[in-house]
Amino acid sequence: MRRLATTDPGFDAALAALLADRATAIDVSEAVAAIIARVRAEGDAALIDLTARFDRFPLTETTLHIGATEIGAAVAAVPAAQRAALDRAATRIETFHRAQMPADLAFTDETGARLGLRWGPLDAVGIYVPGGKAAYPSSVLMNAIPARIAGVSRIAMCVPTPDGVTNPLVLAAAHRAGVTEIYRVGGAQAVAALAYGTARIAPVDRIVGPGNAYVAEAKRLVFGRVGIDSIAGPSEVLVIADAAQNPDHVALDLLAQAEHDEAAQAILITDDAGFADAVAETIARVLKTLPRSAVAGASWRDHGAIVLVRNLDEATAIANRIAPEHLQIMTADPARDFARIRHAGAVFLGRHTPEAIGDYIAGPNHVLPTSGTARFASGLSVYDFLKRTTWAELDAASLATIGPSAVTLAEAEGLGAHARSVAIRLEA
Amino acid sequence: MRRLATTDPGFDAALAALLADRATAIDVSEAVAAIIARVRAEGDAALIDLTARFDRFPLTETTLHIGATEIGAAVAAVPAAQRAALDRAATRIETFHRAQMPADLAFTDETGARLGLRWGPLDAVGIYVPGGKAAYPSSVLMNAIPARIAGVSRIAMCVPTPDGVTNPLVLAAAHRAGVTEIYRVGGAQAVAALAYGTARIAPVDRIVGPGNAYVAEAKRLVFGRVGIDSIAGPSEVLVIADAAQNPDHVALDLLAQAEHDEAAQAILITDDAGFADAVAETIARVLKTLPRSAVAGASWRDHGAIVLVRNLDEATAIANRIAPEHLQIMTADPARDFARIRHAGAVFLGRHTPEAIGDYIAGPNHVLPTSGTARFASGLSVYDFLKRTTWAELDAASLATIGPSAVTLAEAEGLGAHARSVAIRLEA
Repeated sequence: MRRLATTDPGFDAALAALLADRATAIDVSEAVAAIIARVRAEGDAALIDLTARFDRFPLTETTLHIGATEIGAAVAAVPAAQRAALDRAATRIETFHRAQMPADLAFTDETGARLGLRWGPLDAVGIYVPGGKAAYPSSVLMNAIPARIAGVSRIAMCVPTPDGVTNPLVLAAAHRAGVTEIYRVGGAQAVAALAYGTARIAPVDRIVGPGNAYVAEAKRLVFGRVGIDSIAGPSEVLVIADAAQNPDHVALDLLAQAEHDEAAQAILITDDAGFADAVAETIARVLKTLPRSAVAGASWRDHGAIVLVRNLDEATAIANRIAPEHLQIMTADPARDFARIRHAGAVFLGRHTPEAIGDYIAGPNHVLPTSGTARFASGLSVYDFLKRTTWAELDAASLATIGPSAVTLAEAEGLGAHARSVAIRLEA
Repeated sequence: MRRLATTDPGFDAALAALLADRATAIDVSEAVAAIIARVRAEGDAALIDLTARFDRFPLTETTLHIGATEIGAAVAAVPAAQRAALDRAATRIETFHRAQMPADLAFTDETGARLGLRWGPLDAVGIYVPGGKAAYPSSVLMNAIPARIAGVSRIAMCVPTPDGVTNPLVLAAAHRAGVTEIYRVGGAQAVAALAYGTARIAPVDRIVGPGNAYVAEAKRLVFGRVGIDSIAGPSEVLVIADAAQNPDHVALDLLAQAEHDEAAQAILITDDAGFADAVAETIARVLKTLPRSAVAGASWRDHGAIVLVRNLDEATAIANRIAPEHLQIMTADPARDFARIRHAGAVFLGRHTPEAIGDYIAGPNHVLPTSGTARFASGLSVYDFLKRTTWAELDAASLATIGPSAVTLAEAEGLGAHARSVAIRLEA
């Protein structure tokens, strides 16, 4: 864990070093390109062979699809309290995403031209769900629910079952989110199947969901053939807290981020050195008691930081430089400080809003832009599953009013047929 | 030009062949990666050297930036009629894009939790404008105006001036669109400069605008470091027209698309064989009289098509399969037929709305998804220059209501610190 202060000489360079890319760069592009080529050439047979190799599971054409019976059994195997929590989370996520749905635009302007913009859902979406250690039922809800609210009629989910192990809560989450088309396949081969289709898996229009380096590279390679969501890096949180906060709470908020991944990053910015000390001490003490203490300890040791600022305006300025995925603002006037934030994926205001609430149940999406990409990117939303069609309908009068300018510009650009397609209609 | 009919045996395969990828696939990734590496290492010196090599122009550090004097002279050199047309187009594009601006979301739910979503502009955007034959002032308006309406405070434009030739109308369009930061540099080196910055060009957050294969590959390679718009393929139009339309108008609409590029594609779908013949005859006749007859002729010959359908429901079904960039619906009831369209970039309704009106002056954007990507992608809009930050603010009561479910889910996912960061706040 590094401690920085804005009064340090060399603070800017130290902050830049802290934020240097944490993603482990392994080049898997050749291996992934080969997998995609095999799936395109051999279809389901490639999926079966690659699943045997990578997931040590003897997939067959009939077990590729996880049927309703198996899903029903998984749902029944989930303890009632977990089912109830999943349902409450799903309901809240549905409410928030329904509130996001945009309205169509249509108006007639002063020339009589009718203009508009119509939103419509994608036909088919693929959701990738990791197996193994990163199998998060909450992510199934966060990916599938916005697609369903947007009106996507076909949602196909791929989830690997390494060594044949299925996570019942993942299937229960899919069931609650209304996903019925689920395939037992993962990795780059799953992405290839979703993008190009096989005999048993029809192709989709967009693929979303987190995954390892192979999945990320496969999404990058099929981009253009289908849409993809952004390639997520390691997760991160920035907590801005003043001395009036409970240091034990803040320590747990930072550790909640650190326990995700050794490459995760948790940063505290505070204007009080004593508070910084108190948080650091709690973290050192609590770390040992966590179920994932090794992961959280490595993250905090290698990427954690406490930044001491002179005042909260410095804090918000640094936050804008970081453009964090998650930002907790625990200050006397969180609304005031939030108004100064230009770049953040999701913001959690006040002492009663730990970031973990947003991971599960607040309602906003937990799939968010990482590594400073909140400068230009946004979290997952219904917009990821909608597209816009603009339209125009002129009558003879409106064309007579605005057409001549189009002719002038088309001629200036040397596009004679453009000009004549308008001019011929002005002659009548 | 191919003529197909839905009654043909093998129609589906013939349509698929017609739509096969028209993009010329030249692999420039190594060359582009080398250019990007040079710009990152050498900065403006690399821009100067590469501009001498590729654009045959002796750029210097002082002529890199196109100053206000030069822009003013260019504006003055543009004929008044063109300036007026540009102004009318800009005003209409501004109106349409202002109408798109989304509203923030904020509500308090039944637990007392306050939730919301806030839109904000990107800080800095780069606009790439091709030089040479594809230098379109209209594209400057279409790229820059949505950024300015979205509230982007810094818009940096790069435009090459091959052999020192500047297009005054391009500079006039930039001026009208409010762009004041313009650099005389193009190609992959311009994209690299915008993404990574040099001494004289500060980096941006997102790069938009059309370009050749080098520019497209450079955008692909810097994606992640910055946001990019979609990689555009050759342009295309689909016209659905019945026998009541004027075949001369339809012929010019198809040729307007064909004259863009040898790889452009113009397709007519009609339910009347005689109308199809009349359009084909007009095209053959008019082609010879066009300023760009060689280009339009090659496009129509190699990629043009007339598809005869039994009825308009077949026409809209084929349109959905094509997912065209531009769609003209010239039928007795365009609104009825438009309601059946699920995938199209921009739609032009009725006999008085040629697609060329949308290229210049209707108001909707002319930067649109090509090659069937309208299945999942949308035209350029203010959304390309905005991002969303979601937020949540709970009080003790709302946390007490929904917190326990978050604890249950965090424990089920094995994330102990997540669970404890919520649970500790429930103890008080």
